[in-house]
Amino acid sequence: MKKQEKKVKKNTQTGKKHTDHTTIANFLYEIGTLRKLMRMHRQVLLTDDMSDSIASHSYRVAMISWFLAKEEGADPYKTVMMALIHDVGEARSNDHNWVHKRYIKVFEEEIDQEQFGSLPYHDLKDFIDEYQKRESKEAILAKEADTLDQILLLREYEWGGNKEASIWLYGNSKKNIKRQLDKLKTRTGLLLGEAMYSTNPSDWWSSLWTSKNR
Amino acid sequence: MKKQEKKVKKNTQTGKKHTDHTTIANFLYEIGTLRKLMRMHRQVLLTDDMSDSIASHSYRVAMISWFLAKEEGADPYKTVMMALIHDVGEARSNDHNWVHKRYIKVFEEEIDQEQFGSLPYHDLKDFIDEYQKRESKEAILAKEADTLDQILLLREYEWGGNKEASIWLYGNSKKNIKRQLDKLKTRTGLLLGEAMYSTNPSDWWSSLWTSKNR
Amino acid sequence: MKKQEKKVKKNTQTGKKHTDHTTIANFLYEIGTLRKLMRMHRQVLLTDDMSDSIASHSYRVAMISWFLAKEEGADPYKTVMMALIHDVGEARSNDHNWVHKRYIKVFEEEIDQEQFGSLPYHDLKDFIDEYQKRESKEAILAKEADTLDQILLLREYEWGGNKEASIWLYGNSKKNIKRQLDKLKTRTGLLLGEAMYSTNPSDWWSSLWTSKNR
Amino acid sequence: MKKQEKKVKKNTQTGKKHTDHTTIANFLYEIGTLRKLMRMHRQVLLTDDMSDSIASHSYRVAMISWFLAKEEGADPYKTVMMALIHDVGEARSNDHNWVHKRYIKVFEEEIDQEQFGSLPYHDLKDFIDEYQKRESKEAILAKEADTLDQILLLREYEWGGNKEASIWLYGNSKKNIKRQLDKLKTRTGLLLGEAMYSTNPSDWWSSLWTSKNR
Amino acid sequence: MKKQEKKVKKNTQTGKKHTDHTTIANFLYEIGTLRKLMRMHRQVLLTDDMSDSIASHSYRVAMISWFLAKEEGADPYKTVMMALIHDVGEARSNDHNWVHKRYIKVFEEEIDQEQFGSLPYHDLKDFIDEYQKRESKEAILAKEADTLDQILLLREYEWGGNKEASIWLYGNSKKNIKRQLDKLKTRTGLLLGEAMYSTNPSDWWSSLWTSKNR
Amino acid sequence: MKKQEKKVKKNTQTGKKHTDHTTIANFLYEIGTLRKLMRMHRQVLLTDDMSDSIASHSYRVAMISWFLAKEEGADPYKTVMMALIHDVGEARSNDHNWVHKRYIKVFEEEIDQEQFGSLPYHDLKDFIDEYQKRESKEAILAKEADTLDQILLLREYEWGGNKEASIWLYGNSKKNIKRQLDKLKTRTGLLLGEAMYSTNPSDWWSSLWTSKNR
Repeated sequence: MKKQEKKVKKNTQTGKKHTDHTTIANFLYEIGTLRKLMRMHRQVLLTDDMSDSIASHSYRVAMISWFLAKEEGADPYKTVMMALIHDVGEARSNDHNWVHKRYIKVFEEEIDQEQFGSLPYHDLKDFIDEYQKRESKEAILAKEADTLDQILLLREYEWGGNKEASIWLYGNSKKNIKRQLDKLKTRTGLLLGEAMYSTNPSDWWSSLWTSKNR
Repeated sequence: MKKQEKKVKKNTQTGKKHTDHTTIANFLYEIGTLRKLMRMHRQVLLTDDMSDSIASHSYRVAMISWFLAKEEGADPYKTVMMALIHDVGEARSNDHNWVHKRYIKVFEEEIDQEQFGSLPYHDLKDFIDEYQKRESKEAILAKEADTLDQILLLREYEWGGNKEASIWLYGNSKKNIKRQLDKLKTRTGLLLGEAMYSTNPSDWWSSLWTSKNR
Repeated sequence: MKKQEKKVKKNTQTGKKHTDHTTIANFLYEIGTLRKLMRMHRQVLLTDDMSDSIASHSYRVAMISWFLAKEEGADPYKTVMMALIHDVGEARSNDHNWVHKRYIKVFEEEIDQEQFGSLPYHDLKDFIDEYQKRESKEAILAKEADTLDQILLLREYEWGGNKEASIWLYGNSKKNIKRQLDKLKTRTGLLLGEAMYSTNPSDWWSSLWTSKNR
Repeated sequence: MKKQEKKVKKNTQTGKKHTDHTTIANFLYEIGTLRKLMRMHRQVLLTDDMSDSIASHSYRVAMISWFLAKEEGADPYKTVMMALIHDVGEARSNDHNWVHKRYIKVFEEEIDQEQFGSLPYHDLKDFIDEYQKRESKEAILAKEADTLDQILLLREYEWGGNKEASIWLYGNSKKNIKRQLDKLKTRTGLLLGEAMYSTNPSDWWSSLWTSKNR
Repeated sequence: MKKQEKKVKKNTQTGKKHTDHTTIANFLYEIGTLRKLMRMHRQVLLTDDMSDSIASHSYRVAMISWFLAKEEGADPYKTVMMALIHDVGEARSNDHNWVHKRYIKVFEEEIDQEQFGSLPYHDLKDFIDEYQKRESKEAILAKEADTLDQILLLREYEWGGNKEASIWLYGNSKKNIKRQLDKLKTRTGLLLGEAMYSTNPSDWWSSLWTSKNR
Repeated sequence: MKKQEKKVKKNTQTGKKHTDHTTIANFLYEIGTLRKLMRMHRQVLLTDDMSDSIASHSYRVAMISWFLAKEEGADPYKTVMMALIHDVGEARSNDHNWVHKRYIKVFEEEIDQEQFGSLPYHDLKDFIDEYQKRESKEAILAKEADTLDQILLLREYEWGGNKEASIWLYGNSKKNIKRQLDKLKTRTGLLLGEAMYSTNPSDWWSSLWTSKNR
């Protein structure tokens, strides 16, 4: 231990300024609170799924966006990074559902500037700026991933019996229209959205099942 | 809607095979269950923090690993992707803490092959293989990020009053040794680990506080 | 049952318009979601107390405000009603802690107008308007009750071991200053705040304890 | 701070006895535990809704009772106060569902006397006594609000997929009888109960929806 | 399947009456609700440990009582069975902490009669009757196990930072008296209680720890 | 207190070695963590029922196994003890659902040896060894109880609206085949399984209902 601490000391003299690492550590504590921030569609879906936090949501959005980027020939690195930070600002604004948006103004630019602007690297600030503009292929795909995660969640809630989720997915009529597909903007997004509707949340394990111990 | 559905149909004829999108959708449902898998150190830390799931953990590990890669001059894309998928296998094995490891063998190679091998792209399989070897700079840093997230969590639990977390962080003696630093293997890891010990989990908001409405 | 339904029919013909009762029912469903809205100081206090919702908070604030009104010679009815609805708007805006306030503008007047303006009675709209102005004795006391509930909660969290709550209550120094009292504005508020600091959260049951069955 | 503390000191000399404020503070800590007391119909409804505590329930009952009082020309202040305290006794008895009632005797008068009798004001004791008698208009309406909150909850649980809640609401037969209306005793109660059955828990937000940021 | 169903049919004709199995199934659904009944010391300990249900509590009490019976030379079968059912009645009465006991009468004999009296076997009724009398060695030990589980829980909560648990364990003075030992009545109970105080909740895994995968 | 402590001292001199009681206390702390271990079918059933822990599960399995032993003329003591400890090993291996089993080897014999081998009595080790062999009547019945508890849980989840639970119970086809009965191996198991399918989870309280206070 002693040896290590010396190593750190030495490193701090020759290497990066200590303040930078403290800045990063603080940022990491900040994004740690994203696992305590529940996504607010829970209010209107009347669900008690506490596992759907900004952190766990952003995790799957990042994974979805990677596939979208690969399929659409976009830069997967940039798309994933945008997905990872697309809701980081909610640590400072809280999440707002589609009722809240009606009555709330979030000063996103200030958040983006103050969260990312003082970090040792400028890349995250650049990523979030590009994402907010929704112009580049990557920005559009990261947003598409956000929408697709919503479909996955609604399907999971429908599977648990939630009637409101069913209405969001299929509407109130008997026609069973796949309403959520309307929000999708890309070819791959539509194909994935279709697949999410037609596959059941439990299909992935249906072929893996075993009752035998090894 | 109708128009969109036609668009999907046409796309499936000229573009990717439909099965691929179903395969991806199934994979996304599978990793969705990572938010239901609690990290098992909770058993030995006697904590009730249900927000510390494999999904929310992997999220912060990905963010940490990005900073490590930037500081250490590694490929940030590869490092982040490894971090994102480093625990995906636990969807098929469950998480195991340091007591469980003693009595459990996980057939990781089979999991890796069956989870990633049939996906339309081979990149994720390559990433996990490289991560498992722990040889490349990126693999070492993604693992380092995993360890650093543990320090952040322990500090957060210590802040909530958890005595076991304090013992893990500082040992039982009065010397307050920073025990967790022993596990770190890189220069930046050590500097960040030091910063996590010396910064408090609430420092990030101490300068942001306001009681005024806009 | 049949008889009752007829009674309702008849009543709807001679009595209030049916729409009014639907409006009230919708309002009651809306405020029902307040029990799903967690108070957001949990993000910065790192607490997992899911029982601290806008609904349960508003409940105790109403009770506190009743005592304040009695002690200060204010109108207890008005004070209690203001307390009951002081956070109803958060059903449409979500709750925001003292970090969020920095980056968020809530269009409260629009919320107040749209939530209360179309209800069959105008009293609630009047109460919330008076509360927002913070001029009347009753408005000041309802707000004071809000602050006092915060002290009670911090004391309860301190009792559970939360270090951040202790810092909020006493500051970081060793002087153990009762920091939260600074926010109080009325004589009774101060006296109650003092009492909340000096009484322990478990004192109320210390004289009630029995191990005997009746 | 110092100035404030002096102010308190001075006030305690000239004003109310300090013991009174301690008594009130203890009472407020006691009713704070109502948010930890789950309503026990959850046992028989097999629901995991931890947000339905005595505190959050009492909150909505108070709001319902206000509307009932206004519609029925009763004293809204008295009705609301009765609603607010109608379950405070459960801090000392725990909640009991309709199975428990069969096997339990609660010495309510002792609870009422010991909880409210030593408070600095006698009003709460008077309110609870009047409520327990169920004779006055206000007492009947506060109880009616209690029943109506049950209908709201059952409808919310039905919306989440709970089959038992559906049976409670409509019975087991195909006739879809509105069984819960049988428990209602007042004209407005019936009209509101009808409206709760015919309105869906999500109707309130259907016209508020927006996807645009401000 | 068809073959099995025939087998059941045949069995029901020659074997036990079908009603008995329905009676048992209903009893098993009833005791299933014990996992939804939180132990009520949580109200006064201000803990959010939802895992401490009547079911999980009874589980450990049964295990403790087995050791007590072995050490004290009592009948382990009878002792364990008493422990398993000692709180089954709470499915019909709810749990009551030491404040509740002051204001509540539970008609335990009626519960015991109605829960166990109509089961196909009379043994459980005999066990509960013997337990309620607290005369036999086994009854005394099953109760002792109940008390010892409380010590274990308090130690676990103390380990998580809970100050109230510390007061229950050691009192308010600085003398650190082991207060809970006063409640113990048997030699082995005292020895085990002592050991629970002197061993830490995490000692069991301290020698099992490994970071190596198999 | 002093007297008691002396008594303990004296006892430790003449009686059992102190280490034994520490060993037992450590074992009891270890099995206390079973209430923190969620059963992993929750991952594939997408349920949020945190009350279904290894501890609460083992509790009902013990009760079921008692009835099975009585009906089948087996030794109820042995059967109950096997049920109580049948999952104790999961404190050291974690729980694994039917997907996990495919990729995991649990070194159960080592766990059994290290958990039970050093306890002051050898009985528990003997019980677990007999259970693992699944040869004796008692071992078969304890396992049958494990399966029956799964049926009870699936029925409870079906009752809450869970579609996946319905598929597990009845299959995907419209034929409503009672699929879970296939897993049962004994006559009483089948009869009880049948009864669990035909009785509803709420039937037990349908005749107990009362709205009258005593």
